[in-house]
Amino acid sequence: MTHPFDGAMALQPAGANTWQGLVPDSYQNMVGPFGGVIAAWPVAAVMRDERRVGTPVSQTVHYAAALQPGAFSLMLMPERTSRSTQHWRFAITQEATSADGPTIFGSLMTAARRDTWSAEDLPMPADAPPPEAVAQQHRNSPFEWFNRYEWRMFEGLMPSAWDGAQRGDSRTALWVRDVPPRPMDFASLAAQCDLFYPRVFARRAERVPVGTVSMTSYFHADEADLAATGADYVMGQCIGQVFRRGYFDQTACLWNRAGRVLATTQQLVYFKS
Amino acid sequence: MTHPFDGAMALQPAGANTWQGLVPDSYQNMVGPFGGVIAAWPVAAVMRDERRVGTPVSQTVHYAAALQPGAFSLMLMPERTSRSTQHWRFAITQEATSADGPTIFGSLMTAARRDTWSAEDLPMPADAPPPEAVAQQHRNSPFEWFNRYEWRMFEGLMPSAWDGAQRGDSRTALWVRDVPPRPMDFASLAAQCDLFYPRVFARRAERVPVGTVSMTSYFHADEADLAATGADYVMGQCIGQVFRRGYFDQTACLWNRAGRVLATTQQLVYFKS
Repeated sequence: MTHPFDGAMALQPAGANTWQGLVPDSYQNMVGPFGGVIAAWPVAAVMRDERRVGTPVSQTVHYAAALQPGAFSLMLMPERTSRSTQHWRFAITQEATSADGPTIFGSLMTAARRDTWSAEDLPMPADAPPPEAVAQQHRNSPFEWFNRYEWRMFEGLMPSAWDGAQRGDSRTALWVRDVPPRPMDFASLAAQCDLFYPRVFARRAERVPVGTVSMTSYFHADEADLAATGADYVMGQCIGQVFRRGYFDQTACLWNRAGRVLATTQQLVYFKS
Repeated sequence: MTHPFDGAMALQPAGANTWQGLVPDSYQNMVGPFGGVIAAWPVAAVMRDERRVGTPVSQTVHYAAALQPGAFSLMLMPERTSRSTQHWRFAITQEATSADGPTIFGSLMTAARRDTWSAEDLPMPADAPPPEAVAQQHRNSPFEWFNRYEWRMFEGLMPSAWDGAQRGDSRTALWVRDVPPRPMDFASLAAQCDLFYPRVFARRAERVPVGTVSMTSYFHADEADLAATGADYVMGQCIGQVFRRGYFDQTACLWNRAGRVLATTQQLVYFKS
């Protein structure tokens, strides 16, 4: 059996700098697929690109328009390469809308990592319970992507009533893993950077139209960190920062159970109210 | 007299999607110009582009190679435009190195802002002194860009001795403005997102090679916020997050004196040790 995430990452090489893919039903969200799966495509492609230097260290994705069901084309090319670093550019287009420009585009960077002095100044919250002590949110969501993850939120769950109530902060903390469990790789790490529901819902229980417009993730994990994480739960924490005139930003961190930061990530989100 | 920042922003239109500029001596850093001025060029250009929809809300800059003295070419084009949002791509090339690809490239987004519910969850630190109560750092720096700003750091100054001493955190807090004072615009805001010296120096007093490889800024300010800020000081605070295997990330916020967030920003920085 192919894991759903691997199914979603099934890109076919289609000539120089080009891959072909299919928007998967298995990660469908309200409008188009889960943004994390979209972010994962260029990362999955770069991992298969034989020109690649090192491993992913950063990525920015612009969500410029909604992806339609069906086929898409992913352009991925190195813009500038040095001995130990490489900067890439990517764009996702679909035939019916290609005259309007890419629906998704952005940049990523790969780099050869070398041992250096290190400091981890973003510790996992000391009072975080172990994943086994947190009740699983049992849901059969109409949004398929939600069912692809096992959720153990222990702070800042989605509002249970949309009554406009405000909370003093927008923090969510959770343990999460793929369903079924799957050893983490750079593509699934890129996807999991987008696991946090829009902070405007955490801060104020009112349903309003939202959409991520740009997401930037820094991958602090190297291949050894991913191997040490395996298919275990990762802990995530997310907060909103500034909500103003139609846009807000949220920032998050992912740790493995040993407290090792795997990624830090931030996104700018459109909202209407 | 032209203000040095306006001098640095003097871009000449040079055909479709293209601007010509000159690397200014006035903002020279250790290797090439101050990264903030580099980030400001595409923002300055987009503000002069008659196709623009709205004002800048986000930007990502990849610093892929060092900019050489002399002329450069800036490509800036809209990738995707809707009624109220626009996603742009840019690249800076220089003739002598153009075969290697752009030295700088990235993306930005502009958007028409509309009034909405708002929340400001990133308050200015309550114990921040007013700028007039903070001693100015008098320096005649060999790095010209440093002399283009008036610095009033009140926490986390650059180490005065490079003795390898470690601090428990990497926080810097400061008031800053252009020299001479200049009313803030989106270009100077983009530049000021890069005012914070590399956190590896704040955390450990050891001179090591460093260089920002990617910076992402979210501009929460609209034109009214910039007008209200004027040429006054802005307060900035910056911390480092994870320092590991040759890269670290740092995150910062800029407020005006009224405590209004103007921008949040983060960057990934290469270091060697």
